[in-house]
Order: sequence, then C-alpha cells, then structure tokens
Amino acid sequence: MTPVTYDVEQSSNYNFINLKTGQKEIPFGEYLFQRVLDSGTKSIFGVPGDFNLPLLEYLYEPQLINQGLRWIGNCNELNAAYAADGYSRYSNKIGCLITTYGVGELSAMNGIAGGFAENSKILHIVGVARSIDSRCKNFKQRNLHHLVPNLIDSNFNGPNHKIYYEMIKDKICCSAEYLEDIDQVCNQVDKVIMDIYKYSKPGYIFVPVDFVNMTVPINNLLKTPKINLMDCIKPNFEEEENIIQITKLIQDLLYKSKTPAIIGDVLTDRYGGKELINRLINETHLWNFSSVNGKSIINESNPTYMGLYNGDEGPTLVKERFLQCDLILNFGVDINEVNQGHYTFKYKQDCQLIELHPNYIRFSKPNMDDGNKEEQIFKGINFIHILKLLVESIDVGQLRHQYPVSIKPFKTEELNFNHDPESQIITQTYIQNKFTTYLNPGDVVVCETGSVQFAMRDLVLPNQLKYISQGFFLSIGMALPAALGVGIAMQDFPRYHLSKDNDNEIPKDYIPRLILLEGDGAAQMTIQELTSMIRFNVPIEIMLWNNNGYTIERAILGPTRSYNDVMQWDWTKLLQAFGDFDNRTNSCIIKTPKELAQKMEQLRKGNKTKSIELMEVKMETLDYPKQLTHMVESAKVKKIKPSTII
Amino acid sequence: MTPVTYDVEQSSNYNFINLKTGQKEIPFGEYLFQRVLDSGTKSIFGVPGDFNLPLLEYLYEPQLINQGLRWIGNCNELNAAYAADGYSRYSNKIGCLITTYGVGELSAMNGIAGGFAENSKILHIVGVARSIDSRCKNFKQRNLHHLVPNLIDSNFNGPNHKIYYEMIKDKICCSAEYLEDIDQVCNQVDKVIMDIYKYSKPGYIFVPVDFVNMTVPINNLLKTPKINLMDCIKPNFEEEENIIQITKLIQDLLYKSKTPAIIGDVLTDRYGGKELINRLINETHLWNFSSVNGKSIINESNPTYMGLYNGDEGPTLVKERFLQCDLILNFGVDINEVNQGHYTFKYKQDCQLIELHPNYIRFSKPNMDDGNKEEQIFKGINFIHILKLLVESIDVGQLRHQYPVSIKPFKTEELNFNHDPESQIITQTYIQNKFTTYLNPGDVVVCETGSVQFAMRDLVLPNQLKYISQGFFLSIGMALPAALGVGIAMQDFPRYHLSKDNDNEIPKDYIPRLILLEGDGAAQMTIQELTSMIRFNVPIEIMLWNNNGYTIERAILGPTRSYNDVMQWDWTKLLQAFGDFDNRTNSCIIKTPKELAQKMEQLRKGNKTKSIELMEVKMETLDYPKQLTHMVESAKVKKIKPSTII
Repeated sequence: MTPVTYDVEQSSNYNFINLKTGQKEIPFGEYLFQRVLDSGTKSIFGVPGDFNLPLLEYLYEPQLINQGLRWIGNCNELNAAYAADGYSRYSNKIGCLITTYGVGELSAMNGIAGGFAENSKILHIVGVARSIDSRCKNFKQRNLHHLVPNLIDSNFNGPNHKIYYEMIKDKICCSAEYLEDIDQVCNQVDKVIMDIYKYSKPGYIFVPVDFVNMTVPINNLLKTPKINLMDCIKPNFEEEENIIQITKLIQDLLYKSKTPAIIGDVLTDRYGGKELINRLINETHLWNFSSVNGKSIINESNPTYMGLYNGDEGPTLVKERFLQCDLILNFGVDINEVNQGHYTFKYKQDCQLIELHPNYIRFSKPNMDDGNKEEQIFKGINFIHILKLLVESIDVGQLRHQYPVSIKPFKTEELNFNHDPESQIITQTYIQNKFTTYLNPGDVVVCETGSVQFAMRDLVLPNQLKYISQGFFLSIGMALPAALGVGIAMQDFPRYHLSKDNDNEIPKDYIPRLILLEGDGAAQMTIQELTSMIRFNVPIEIMLWNNNGYTIERAILGPTRSYNDVMQWDWTKLLQAFGDFDNRTNSCIIKTPKELAQKMEQLRKGNKTKSIELMEVKMETLDYPKQLTHMVESAKVKKIKPSTII
Repeated sequence: MTPVTYDVEQSSNYNFINLKTGQKEIPFGEYLFQRVLDSGTKSIFGVPGDFNLPLLEYLYEPQLINQGLRWIGNCNELNAAYAADGYSRYSNKIGCLITTYGVGELSAMNGIAGGFAENSKILHIVGVARSIDSRCKNFKQRNLHHLVPNLIDSNFNGPNHKIYYEMIKDKICCSAEYLEDIDQVCNQVDKVIMDIYKYSKPGYIFVPVDFVNMTVPINNLLKTPKINLMDCIKPNFEEEENIIQITKLIQDLLYKSKTPAIIGDVLTDRYGGKELINRLINETHLWNFSSVNGKSIINESNPTYMGLYNGDEGPTLVKERFLQCDLILNFGVDINEVNQGHYTFKYKQDCQLIELHPNYIRFSKPNMDDGNKEEQIFKGINFIHILKLLVESIDVGQLRHQYPVSIKPFKTEELNFNHDPESQIITQTYIQNKFTTYLNPGDVVVCETGSVQFAMRDLVLPNQLKYISQGFFLSIGMALPAALGVGIAMQDFPRYHLSKDNDNEIPKDYIPRLILLEGDGAAQMTIQELTSMIRFNVPIEIMLWNNNGYTIERAILGPTRSYNDVMQWDWTKLLQAFGDFDNRTNSCIIKTPKELAQKMEQLRKGNKTKSIELMEVKMETLDYPKQLTHMVESAKVKKIKPSTII
C-alpha cells in the first residue's frame, strides 16, 4: 500500500536501444507479459497492490492487448489462484495470477498448493519490494509493510526480503525465481514458464517493483517466439531411442493380450494426450476405464467404456470388468489415496500392468505371488511420447483381444439407484438418476468438493463433456472461482476442449454450456467471486445444492453437530447484491424432483432466461450418496499392522 | 475430507486411570481445550475438516462448556485467522483458530503472518494426519488428500507429512510444535501458549487426529492451573536487578528533564501496559503522543495529549511540539516504516531517547552530531516491568518539567480540515471534521486498511475508545472478520477494554458500541463473514465507505485504471442475502453530509433500529485524505544513495 519509488516512463511507442550493445530493448514489464502471451495464455487473474501496480500498467500496452492480453480482477487472491487453476484445467495452458508481496501471495497459497497437488499449470507472479531495497545496507534494517519482521531483535536485524519465497520454494511449486539481477531476468522468466509445462505444476516469479520499467534485450523473443508444452518436454536422442523401444515392448504385449484395457488418468490431459488416447480407443476398441482424477478424459460414451475404476471404493460391476483384464495400460497415472480407492486397486492374476508417468514408465505384475519381482522401470521418459508413437504405429490387425461377449459397455443405469418416483424430496439418488439427462455432449461441468462430487463419480458422461473437479486436494470453495477461470478460458479459447478429430459430433453452432455444481457450505467460502461472473460476462448455470452445511463432514463425524452447520442464506438475493443491476441473472429455488427435472430440461434445451442462472436446490441435511458412505466405511476399516511402524 | 480411522470413545463422564502410574488422565482433546481456557480464551474460531473433527467433538464436553468454551464457525479459514486476530487485539488474550491439514491452514496463512507482523497473540491449531500414518513404512509412500506430493517421483518417495509445518516454522510464528509423541504433547502445548504470551506473536500446534482421544496426565493442569501473560514474562533475579537499575536511570533523567514526553506505542498494549501508561500520564502530566500502530493506547482526551507523532508524515503542528522535547520515553515501540513515518522521526538537539522494547531497552541521543555514539542497550529486559516499577516508584514532586505555556493540548480542530459546508458530497475532509462527534467514550472502532484509515490517524479520539487497525501489515479485507472477532471478545469479556482506574468516566450501564469502518474494495475480499455477525448476534455499526474501488491504490498509481476498479454492489441487499431472516439488520444508503450527520447522531445516541446497521456511504472515487497524499509524496521523494548499496 505504501508506495515505492518508480518513474512511469513507459509508453506504447518506446523503442529503446541499449547503448552498449546497440540492440533493441523493451521494458521488462512488457517482456514478462509477452512471455505469458507466448506461452498461450491471454487472461491474467489477480488483485492490485502497490508492489505490482507498475507491472499492471503494462496491461494497457496496445501491442499486448492486440494479442489478446486482458486483466481479470478478482475479489481476493485465493479466488484468483483458484480461477487461474480453472483456466489452466480448461485450456491446458498456463493459468496466470498476479498478487502483491506478503498479503496477496500468502492469501493465494492454498490455491497454489492445490494446483501443485493436482498438476495444474499456474504461474504466480508476485510483485515485491524494489531490488535496490533488499540489497541496500540502510534499508536492510528497515521493516517494510507487507513484510514480516524478524522474531527477535527485529529492530536490529534487517528483515528477510525473500522470506515468502523461501516458504514456497521446493514446497508447493516446481520452479521459483526471485529476480535480483536485471541481466538474468529474461532467462529466469523463460525457465519458470518452461518448468511449469515440463512438470505441470505451479511456478513463481517474484518481480521487484523497480525492475518492470527497466529495459531488457529481446533476444529470447526472437530466438523462441513461442513456448509450447511439447517443446518443453522434447526428448533428446537417447530418450527417442528409449521411447521407440518401450513402445515396441508395449505393442508386443498388446498383440499378445486377450483382455487388454486402458485407463485414462489425469496426467494424460495435462500433457496434451486427450485426443491421442481417444483415438487409440476408437481405433483399437480396447476396453477402457476412467479414473476419479481423470474423469472425462476418455469419452465415456465410447462403445468399449467399462466404467470408472476405483478399486474397492468403486462399483463392484466395474471392478468385475477390470479384474478380467490381463493387460492394463494406465496412461498419465497419478497415484494417490483418492485416485487409487485408498490403495485398493486389484488386478487379475498374472495381469501385466504398465503405468505410464511423466517421468518414468513402470512394467509390473502386481498380482504375482512373489510380489513385484517382475517390475521394470524406465526412468526419464515422458509417457506422452509413447502414447503418440503407439497411436501412430499400432497395427490394429495384430490385436488379438477376445473380451467376454457377455459383458456390455458400462451404463449409469447398471448402478440401480433406487429412487422412489413418488418422493417429493430431491435426493442424491435422484440426482444420480437424472443428472446426465441435464447434459449435452461438449458441455463443461465444474464440480465442487463435497457430497455431490461423490454422486457424480460413476455417471457415464456425454461425449466430449469436460468434467473439472479438485478430486484429490479437496479444498472446499475451490470450484466457484475455478468456474470463473474456466468461463474466462472458454471465452479465450471457444470450443477448445472439443476434439478436432470428431468435430462433427458436436454441431458447429453449439455453444458449450458451463455448469457449476456447488454446495452451500463450500460456496460460502468464496461466494464473492460470483460478482466476477457478472463483471466479465461469463454465462453459467449454477446448481447450488443446499443441504444445510458441511454434509460431507457429517458423513465422517458429527452428523448433527453444530460445527458442521453453516448459516442459511437467501441464495436467490445474492446475484442482485453482487451487482446485477441490468438484470442479466436469474435465481430460483427448486424444491421438488419435478421442478428440478423441468429446469434441467429447459436448460439442456438452451432455453435460459438469463446469462447466469442460479438454482438453489433444496436437499436433505443427512443425505449422502452411497459412494461417499462407502468411501467413509472402507477408509475406517483400514488398520495398520503394528509391525509396519518404523 | 476422506476420513481417518479413529474411535469415538469420549464421554463427559470419563475418568481414566493410567495403569502404570496410577494417575488420573484425560483425553488429549480435553487437555488442549482446557489449556486454551486456562490461558484466558473462551471462543475458538475455525472451520471443520476431517483431520480436526475428532478434536471438535471435545467442544461439547460439559466441563469445558461450563468454563465458557464455544465454537465460532467461520465461512473460511482466512476469515477465521482475521477473527482470531481481532479477538486477541480486543482482549489481549490469545485468539485461537482451528483449521485442517493443508487446505485449511494454508488458507489462513496470510492472517497468521499479519498477526506476526503486528504482534498479535494467535494460536493456530491444525488437525493433521494420524501420527501412525506419518511414521508407518507403508503409508510413507502414500499420497494423502490435502497433502502435496513430492515434485519428482512422487509415487516412489513418501510425501513429507510435515511440509506445511516446515513452511511456517521460524517464519511467521514464534513457536510451532508438530506433535509426534503422546508423552510430550502436554508440555508442547504449554510451551506454545507460553511462547505466544512471551513474544506476543502467533504460535502453531499440529495435532495428529489420532492423538485427541488418547489420554494424557493432568500434572500440568494441577501444577499450573492458569497461564497468564505476566507469568510468561516473569523476570529472573538478575533481570529484577537490572529492571531496578534501569528504572532508576530513567527516573533520574526524568527528574532532570525540562520537556519530557511519552509515546505510547503498540507493544504497551500487547504486554498489558495500557492502564499503567495512562496512570503514569495522569499522575505526572507529562506530554504524551500517540503512534500510528499504537493509536488509542493512551487516552487521547487527556489534558497533556500532544497528537499522533509520525515524523515528517504527520501534521507539522505535532512535529513542532515533539521537537521541543528533550527526553522521549517511547514505550512498547515497534519500529517499522509505517510507524516511523518512513523513518523520518526527528528529535530535538541533544534529546535523550529511551526506547522501551519487549526484549531490550535502548538509550540514545539520535540528534547528536556524532550520531548514536551515546547509545546504551540493555538486553533481555521486557519494558513492561520497567513501566510498572516506574509508575509505582516515581516521585512526582521531583519532576521539573516546564513546558512552553503557549502550547496547548492537541485538538482535531487544529488540523483545519477545509470542508465546504455547502457541499452535497461526503468527502474525506468532511469525515475528518465530523467523525469524532459520532463516537462515545469507551466505544470500539475497527478500521480497515484503506484511504479512510489515513483520515482517522490524527483525529483525537474520545476517552477510553479502543481503536483497532492493521496499520503496518496492511492486508485489505482484514478488518471485517477482525470486527467479528472483536465483537465475540466483547461478548466474552464485556467492558474489558475500559480502565479499572477510571471506571466512573464511562457510565456503568453504557454498553460500548462496536463500529467497523470498511471500504468497498476491501469488503469484497472477506464479505461473507458478515453472516457470522448475524449468526452469533454481534451488534455492530458498519460504515461502508463506497468510493468505487481501491482508492488507496489509485492514490499511488493508476487513478483511473481498470485494475483499480471493483464491481458496484447493492450493499443494502447483502445482509438479507446472508441470512437475516428475522429482520435483525438495517441497511441504508447515505449520500449527503446531512444524511451522514443525522445517522451518526442517531447512532451515537444509541437509537439503533436494529442490532446490525450497515450504512453504504457514497464517496468520490478520487477523494484522498491529505495524510494519504502526503505519505505517497514523501515516500516517492526518498531516494537511495548509490553508495549504500551492498
């Protein structure tokens, strides 16, 4: 807030020449935003603060605006981080946010950690104190606003200007550069962006406020005009050889397999393999399974879709299919307790498992009597190259799979949700029964962490629907601002999630809908970001499942405890309060299954009355979807053998 | 969210005996809450999560409830941290919050850092994974929800269960204990609480979810039934000697001084010296000054009050008075750029400066030609003991001060705010002219970071009014949830901020008002916490200064830039949306000075129509108080000499 010294000298007509080198230079602020654009990103989220204001001035440079650069101001920094995460999840580009020293960056931290845990590409630019201040003897002893002083004798010792950088470095980001030498900044910026693509994790750049108006050479811009995912993970010669060899190995195993299957897990999408995996499925007709974290990566309407596999925590029907498979190709696998059903994945006897990771490929036989003795690991290989080569080189004629003819593709109806058709109450079971009829192929659904998230797991989604949910890190409140980010990305890259292969399946004039599934307790965490949906004209349908508090926590402990209660709100008044002065929103309360069915049908047909629709759907406080109950029970049962304690 | 295994065996009638020792034991969950109560705290803020649910169950133990324990559920964790900070600022006890592993604790981080920077006593209890999980060989390789995995080969290496602890330790807290051995936990809890009092900074306790139902001995409870501030900073014998010696030194200087003066800075309040310093002033009639961060610690209506001193950034009138003083006693001083007017403090030639810190006392002559050569530092002494001894032992008869008779006590009117009486616009100048007429002695004002915060600085506040503002860390959005915490503390400790000495001055039946001064941009950051004011029946008057965005940033850069804009809201609809179903709130729009004057008069007289009043006060977008402009200008002017760069 207290200002720092800088000169506002920038202009859109600048043409700086470095007198020493004779080369053209541009202000670093422009360089930074140009690099964001070069990485494919157009919108930047964030909140202004005195340490980033001079950088934000570069948002108005015509040559950047002409490339699509725009500022999406958020209500707070956590929301900005969530929005950047959503932007990245939709676009598979980098979600970028700008915050200010301390007060801003720390507020965003949980959003960045979530991006780290869930492999989101987020660039967090933090405006920090002048470089000169942190290197200046006088100032080292001085306590700056937004900066925590030292604990002891804070008035003798200088504060640590890099304290927040030290907090996040090597913890919740794959790359972090605190800029200190103007001669290094271009390479540092490029490195962080390339690391974000390489690791598919968040990165940080800490930008001293006095650097943004200093000029830097444009060599990097000329040498590498664009920074793409594929360039960042390009294999070297030796790796190319390994890729060919491993792909051959996989092909040989596939040609021998009677019952091979594919899992499309989350990193397949993060490394740009969504079209490839669906092409592989379409061409080979291999059985295929979704995962919790990778849901909707493979088109679940494909004719050999066998359900979402989640070990003991998924439906028995799916497990039975999975246990028939003698070869599993798990593409882009992310191993964590949610995605692996609390580590209850089972395999057929002698099944060959191939896990394809971004940094290694693992062959094993998990269900051999002698354990993992046949394990073979190839390190340093990104699976995406293997997937690509596999699609290009597979000889379908050599496949010999013979799946049991009795087994049909998985359908939602098989789960037999027992909904009483006479009931006047909207239940989780009812939602599970009816929800997919609400969706069109190609729509985008963002689902909040909570009880309804569990209800969604096993539903077979329409073709090319993009489903976004923070299924592992599980930070409630994330989905609402994330949906803003998704909506902004859908503006920047219309129909970007739709396959280029199968474009015909979605009518050319169909505008994919953005649907947010939100819970009342979670919504209260980040509710103010609704205003940004109005501000930036994000069309959205919001299903606000109002079950009177933290129902997901009630399922675990304290079903009737007050700590799981939240305030009852008049949800239908919110959008008006948040600035809908020109009547662009519609809010309503839905109490019965009939009303819900009617509304869903109306919206599915595109008969929205307003750009933003908010439906408060009344549900029962203690209504848990059976997947949630099942997860709670199975997690409780697990005991640890004392012998394994170290 | 995913549950962890535990047994709910607790009961309010438990009477555990340790079979080995024969001693009575209680569940650790009860121990922890008992210790919170023993430190003086009654209300606990926070948000439930699966790693803290079993702990929250102990909120319902009758023997704890009987001592006043209660749960204040917040909308999100950052708000909970801010509320805990406000609770502590009002009560000078520990503000306590409970969050969950990762998603919760990280969201609260900026609130904790603010507490650290501003010396607030905050206890952050984080529910974490089972102790058995983090020590178990099998589980070490497993990625838990809410926990970030490792960056590389996350599926081979176990995640670091203590990663978040490592992020905050030695950074934004004075004490942090990650509980790992049930035999140590009681001492660890006590240590963190004592450290919080000792350093007046936040502390963390990370509680494995499986520990809360384990039993622990009650020895500590018997040995030290209460944990008080004074016990935590008790001097040893040697320190006692030093305290006597230093106090004598100060007395001698005081007895010789012609124009001595006192500054009452922020740590005076944090270490419980507010009554002492006012008693010292009342008995000695020494000149006295407020500071930005210590505003309202000394009663500004006292007859020798000389204004708020902030070096070159404060009013010249005040500086002129200050520069007359040959001896300055700066009690509880906190040295930072805001509090020291960007390090522009000036002193009279040969002035003797005595800075009284919590861990050292410094004697110096800052305006000697030879610099600080006369500096003398006594380390390891908490100033509060000296203040106490000084008040007890000062011989008023020996004082020889002779202040210039022409100089009168400082009055707000001296600042000559030029408000046009005909104007129909509510300006910062108008507010500065009229604001103190809105206040009664003994009221409590919480002021948001923003432009109005600068307008408040120099106003002479009524007697015993408590003014709370985050003047150094300056995290916008903090004040609204902090006001909730203040209101909860006012319920727990009614009239606690009023002097016991001068109780007569405030009528016994007067119920101090809680007033929140809030800006529109800041309010949007944390607005949902308004709902908790309704939920927990916190009477409050909210002045929402609506100046169309981040006016404080506009004063620094980009006055008309879109990045400083926020959405216009219909503020008067908010409280209804946030759950005022039984009409306990009143919201209105105030457009003219006349309307504002009428409303302020009505409220000052106690004629509230509802328990919660929200006034949206319309102001001009580019209206800056002159203190803000002054600060911006003087901070810009400062240049660093190249020679001082290291």
